[in-house]
Amino acid sequence: MRVEIINTGTELLLGQVTNTHLGYLAQSLFGLGLRVERQVTVPDGVAIAEAFEDAMSRADLIVVTGGLGPTSDDITREAASEAFGKKLIFHQEILDGIAAKFAERKFVMNDLQKAQAMVPEGGVVLDNKFGTAPGLIVENDKTVAVLLPGPPGELRPMWENEALPWLKKKFADRLPPMHEVILRILGMGETRVQILLEDDVKALGPIEVGYCARPGEVDLRLISSDKNLVQKAAEIARTKLGDIIYTEGGETMEQAVVRLARAAKKTIATAESCTGGLVASRITNVSHSSEAFRYGWVTYANEAKITELGVLPELLERHGAVSAEVARAMAEGALCNSGADVAVAVTGIAGPTGGSPEKPVGLVYFALATRDGKTTTLEKNLSSVRETFKYMASQVALDLVRRALL
Amino acid sequence: MRVEIINTGTELLLGQVTNTHLGYLAQSLFGLGLRVERQVTVPDGVAIAEAFEDAMSRADLIVVTGGLGPTSDDITREAASEAFGKKLIFHQEILDGIAAKFAERKFVMNDLQKAQAMVPEGGVVLDNKFGTAPGLIVENDKTVAVLLPGPPGELRPMWENEALPWLKKKFADRLPPMHEVILRILGMGETRVQILLEDDVKALGPIEVGYCARPGEVDLRLISSDKNLVQKAAEIARTKLGDIIYTEGGETMEQAVVRLARAAKKTIATAESCTGGLVASRITNVSHSSEAFRYGWVTYANEAKITELGVLPELLERHGAVSAEVARAMAEGALCNSGADVAVAVTGIAGPTGGSPEKPVGLVYFALATRDGKTTTLEKNLSSVRETFKYMASQVALDLVRRALL
Repeated sequence: MRVEIINTGTELLLGQVTNTHLGYLAQSLFGLGLRVERQVTVPDGVAIAEAFEDAMSRADLIVVTGGLGPTSDDITREAASEAFGKKLIFHQEILDGIAAKFAERKFVMNDLQKAQAMVPEGGVVLDNKFGTAPGLIVENDKTVAVLLPGPPGELRPMWENEALPWLKKKFADRLPPMHEVILRILGMGETRVQILLEDDVKALGPIEVGYCARPGEVDLRLISSDKNLVQKAAEIARTKLGDIIYTEGGETMEQAVVRLARAAKKTIATAESCTGGLVASRITNVSHSSEAFRYGWVTYANEAKITELGVLPELLERHGAVSAEVARAMAEGALCNSGADVAVAVTGIAGPTGGSPEKPVGLVYFALATRDGKTTTLEKNLSSVRETFKYMASQVALDLVRRALL
Repeated sequence: MRVEIINTGTELLLGQVTNTHLGYLAQSLFGLGLRVERQVTVPDGVAIAEAFEDAMSRADLIVVTGGLGPTSDDITREAASEAFGKKLIFHQEILDGIAAKFAERKFVMNDLQKAQAMVPEGGVVLDNKFGTAPGLIVENDKTVAVLLPGPPGELRPMWENEALPWLKKKFADRLPPMHEVILRILGMGETRVQILLEDDVKALGPIEVGYCARPGEVDLRLISSDKNLVQKAAEIARTKLGDIIYTEGGETMEQAVVRLARAAKKTIATAESCTGGLVASRITNVSHSSEAFRYGWVTYANEAKITELGVLPELLERHGAVSAEVARAMAEGALCNSGADVAVAVTGIAGPTGGSPEKPVGLVYFALATRDGKTTTLEKNLSSVRETFKYMASQVALDLVRRALL
């Protein structure tokens, strides 16, 4: 089965919005044993119809995002009805539902909303719990098209609750087996990983090995229709790579940290300078993180390190804010003030300014303090653009916590 | 001039990595007066060559990302040389440069790296300051292709320092004028914005009006080749929308906050519960934010609110952690402890659990405390998936700070 995704929206092609739909839908489809073979982004307007026709010439399943709203540049509904040769029919009950939502939120309904009550003949209507535009499924003998609204907060629940169950039923007998292991690796480059593994893994049999490098880390993907083969390959990787594999199965670092902390009934505190709250924010992206995370400090200024974490002024004077000594004092201060089991501290130079020959942009010190009175420190140079630097530093900090919780 | 982007990478189509290249490149190209007309993502392998041929049939400029690395699934270089009918030629000086980078980082060089020293005949080599794979420009009479490495930390500096200057020179006489105003609006839905503005704006003349809705906000885009027309349309929007326009020209909320604070020489403190450090992290994504931001607290647990921000235990007991009263006490505690000029506090229920009939998931209270002794509070219901909720809440919190700094 061939799957393609069409993302519509001038804002995507103007670079004002990042396409998060592809990743979300691709992961979900992979769970069905389906891989996205091609994705295209087209602007609002006639290009949507062209993309529809192009995709229909190849695909069994097309998922389209966006262009279902009420404004004049939303024409996905019309493009689908044309591509499938189905008339658009007005559904009063859809409009009534939209009117009820407007009334509930005390918003004023307007005539433009009517467009959202049009459905290609024979189409399936997907309920939108978090917005007004319903989703649609249109099909002919060869192709199924699922049309979803653009806002992620509307698309995701609709996909999970409405579209996915429908697709599972529809394609029950056509979904191929596909097995995948994803190993996430922190601290080794992609060619090193390949050299270490590929010959042994490929010798096992027909298996797809993929590498995805992000700053400071690599995802290793092992994919095959033979489950046994994937498991054997994963075992080779585990043996050769050891504990630099930080998660399996696509779990994020922060999910692993929260999972481990909850399982061990331990709590984490954070003391951040250069990461500016990103470590705490990543932890709190995880549901139920409140069981594992209770206190965090963003001590961006030296005074904040002194007054909030008890870092001694002399330490700052002697070693500077970006030093192993200050990182240690921050972590120990956070551990003491919070009563947490593990405290992690980060202090570094994010740039683009603030570096010196001795302490260049990208230099960062980490410290991990635990209840047994031991504090370890770590120095890294993670020179990069500001947001990437913050991400890489947060990743190292979370990995220190993960290792402490193991 | 027609511009298309090809993003390569199985990891993008498997949903393991979000495509941030499109947005980055599109914004940059728009600055040249160029719009991306189509973007396609293809997996590693033969599909890259097909996408090349397809794009070459239409485009004057093709920007390709990824697939330049040393591993076996990196075949962009080969696909480009085939599509343009140019032989790949080995460049010793490129390999020497790669070897020097490996030596500097004390990594061991390996034979796979050699692939990165191959260049299509007559191609321009783009230096990679932050990685080993050089970029390439290949051209014939009709089409120019720019090949960039996949990691954003490598792609972005290469694009800005090497590719962009080359393109500016190359297309100096073909770059069409294009004028755009982007107005970012917080607190009004997209149809309301359209109804309020579109008739008046369209009456001015041929102008493109685009809407991009994100949770709780809308970007309004006004585009025309006539600069005067765009300015007039923007003036209409400013008059009708007033201060719900939070930035212009694509500036982010956090950039606006840091810009305003630096200009006013004021500092900001944050006291976060449900946003978990995201407000602080967004502020510190902005260069030079250390001039404006010095102290932040992530008081996720009630105890943290008490010990770190001086919130009275009785207040928590009487009103609950998610209340206007506690938000107010958090903001005032943060202002007092930090000596900042403005302190913002956020406390709410991110979900998916923790809600009740009186205080449902999504309920959030904000407070803004300032040096004049006035503290204002705000209640919102931002029910959504966890990360969207956090983003929307951080947006409201930053907007409160922005308004206080105006």
